[in-house]
Amino acid sequence: MRQPIVFVTDFGRDDAYAAALIGAVWRVDPHAVCIEGTHGIPPGDVLAGAYQLKALARAFSGGAVFCAVVDPGVGTERRAIAVQVGRIRCVAPDNGLISYLWEETPEDDRWAVRVDVGVEASATFHGRDVFAPFAAQLSSRERFEVDGDLIDDPFVLGEAFARREGNVVTGRVAVVDHFGNAITTIRKTDLEGSRLRGVTWPGGSAAELVRTYAHIDTATGALIGSAGHLEVAARGAPVSAAGGPRLGDPVEVHLA
Amino acid sequence: MRQPIVFVTDFGRDDAYAAALIGAVWRVDPHAVCIEGTHGIPPGDVLAGAYQLKALARAFSGGAVFCAVVDPGVGTERRAIAVQVGRIRCVAPDNGLISYLWEETPEDDRWAVRVDVGVEASATFHGRDVFAPFAAQLSSRERFEVDGDLIDDPFVLGEAFARREGNVVTGRVAVVDHFGNAITTIRKTDLEGSRLRGVTWPGGSAAELVRTYAHIDTATGALIGSAGHLEVAARGAPVSAAGGPRLGDPVEVHLA
Amino acid sequence: MRQPIVFVTDFGRDDAYAAALIGAVWRVDPHAVCIEGTHGIPPGDVLAGAYQLKALARAFSGGAVFCAVVDPGVGTERRAIAVQVGRIRCVAPDNGLISYLWEETPEDDRWAVRVDVGVEASATFHGRDVFAPFAAQLSSRERFEVDGDLIDDPFVLGEAFARREGNVVTGRVAVVDHFGNAITTIRKTDLEGSRLRGVTWPGGSAAELVRTYAHIDTATGALIGSAGHLEVAARGAPVSAAGGPRLGDPVEVHLA
Repeated sequence: MRQPIVFVTDFGRDDAYAAALIGAVWRVDPHAVCIEGTHGIPPGDVLAGAYQLKALARAFSGGAVFCAVVDPGVGTERRAIAVQVGRIRCVAPDNGLISYLWEETPEDDRWAVRVDVGVEASATFHGRDVFAPFAAQLSSRERFEVDGDLIDDPFVLGEAFARREGNVVTGRVAVVDHFGNAITTIRKTDLEGSRLRGVTWPGGSAAELVRTYAHIDTATGALIGSAGHLEVAARGAPVSAAGGPRLGDPVEVHLA
Repeated sequence: MRQPIVFVTDFGRDDAYAAALIGAVWRVDPHAVCIEGTHGIPPGDVLAGAYQLKALARAFSGGAVFCAVVDPGVGTERRAIAVQVGRIRCVAPDNGLISYLWEETPEDDRWAVRVDVGVEASATFHGRDVFAPFAAQLSSRERFEVDGDLIDDPFVLGEAFARREGNVVTGRVAVVDHFGNAITTIRKTDLEGSRLRGVTWPGGSAAELVRTYAHIDTATGALIGSAGHLEVAARGAPVSAAGGPRLGDPVEVHLA
Repeated sequence: MRQPIVFVTDFGRDDAYAAALIGAVWRVDPHAVCIEGTHGIPPGDVLAGAYQLKALARAFSGGAVFCAVVDPGVGTERRAIAVQVGRIRCVAPDNGLISYLWEETPEDDRWAVRVDVGVEASATFHGRDVFAPFAAQLSSRERFEVDGDLIDDPFVLGEAFARREGNVVTGRVAVVDHFGNAITTIRKTDLEGSRLRGVTWPGGSAAELVRTYAHIDTATGALIGSAGHLEVAARGAPVSAAGGPRLGDPVEVHLA
């Protein structure tokens, strides 16, 4: 049985680019199942793409082929890659989009290969000409056999991961979601084993974590969101309007 | 044959939340057919969700399972429900989303049950963990058999329905659509049997109803839209820019 | 095998209108395959619709039925048409949406018929009541047999095509895409056979064409985009913020 092909791009939904990926898949395999993961990554924002790719991989944990295209370097010499991490496969430019998928998978359960771009690909639209057709090929294969050199160093974004110094874990806001919640690079797993003493960001703080949005009773609150990342939220409003952090702002968690 | 599962949410399309519902459905039933009704309900706007749910139920009158999630109270004690109204079934938080579906169906053709949320559901994402899996179960069943207590009092929004006093029917603008048309809670059926003398709103009025948008020849006009609700529109522009009512404004119809 | 039905509209994605088209198709054919081309055409912008329809037809070159609805004249006497151009079929209001499809297909490979609107169609939503059901009928037919008079003069937008006077080709910006690139009506084919001396627009110019976005090294650059039209782009920013042309602006190409 085919696995679904899930698109994650910064193409938006107002042009022909998003649906052109479906057309490109169908030229290879008219029975492919295409899912719109999201086309709403902010243009060129590879970190946001890496986060949403992780969130969607959790949602399609039974197996899926992701076609991820946030690709400001299209047409240049940057590599194209395909990775397998557990039951998830993903084709993408080698610019860090697979950072969470790769780093959060044990070494013996992950593979990466370099994908040949081909001379006939257009210079401006590798999503249509390279990544979507390749995803279509993977979707109908049981095994991850790919023409291309095995590589062990796909590009990983350093900024995608919080760092701990002493009792302080420092990350940043990677995504501001549709509800205005500020989702950080700090993960639940980064905080485990220690008691939390507080969360701070430029101009604000939270003393503890709440369980869900409706439990936020002051202007802002911090909680672990549905993909396991710390987020700062306000109740019924964008958090930036209530004194919360903005996209890119540093956020610190102080541990006991 | 499975009925399609139609999503109506306020998740937007720029994050992983919308597609995560599809992933959750597929974990239950990999052959389910998922339709994007809309993920564009304004965040937390239950009345707008109720209206769009009604409009979509008319479009899928052959039968569908709606998964409706506009849920500012996620993770609190609010009930989760499933209703059957004619050939339409819907799972939703019990906050008024099913107001039109429920009230516009004869009593002997509607049922509602309380859905068990389950202790393993995340506190922040019942769409993924409760509503979508439940919709997946309903979609492949012929009959509406649900584990849960039958209830006869699902929450209905009073503000979703216009009221008549003497010759005046008073409603409000429930939705401003993509074209800037102001759609009210006043329905064609609320006006039947009487001759219309005029429509008024704060700062403006229309003397009669026109048949279609292109027949609006002054700044604003009133007409019955495609879901049977009175709307105020301007030609080729948002009605609010032409002196029309805004979201939430009261609108009155004067009858002879 | 059915051909996919691809929607191209100005309905947006936040209301029930877009999915209502799917419901209308399924009432005719519950096995139809529906694809969201785009619902993001600017409201009433027929030229932008014509361009995106062309771009999508290239993506679904194996065959598809397009249901195109950008229709400010809905409910008036404007004709409804269906065209076949090569392997692509399209139902649409006769207002110029099919301009590129029609003009770029050899005369012996294109047909157009007038579609009967029917008295039972609502006055405000021909997408749901006329175009989508008709597309559903076409999708499951091998041949293009349509009840309706054959016509040879579907409406074509003059402004959709650049004109050449001497060594100057003059077009205009038809679409500003999600990345802020200004896509013009000037096509690669309009420039063939001559050496390019420069591109100008109100307040700016480019001396030559670049191959891809990453090769733009000054504020703005010109290139041939993925659908074969000249566009003006900036690197990592909307071109209008970098001195580039705006929607509707004239653009000239000077040839040697």
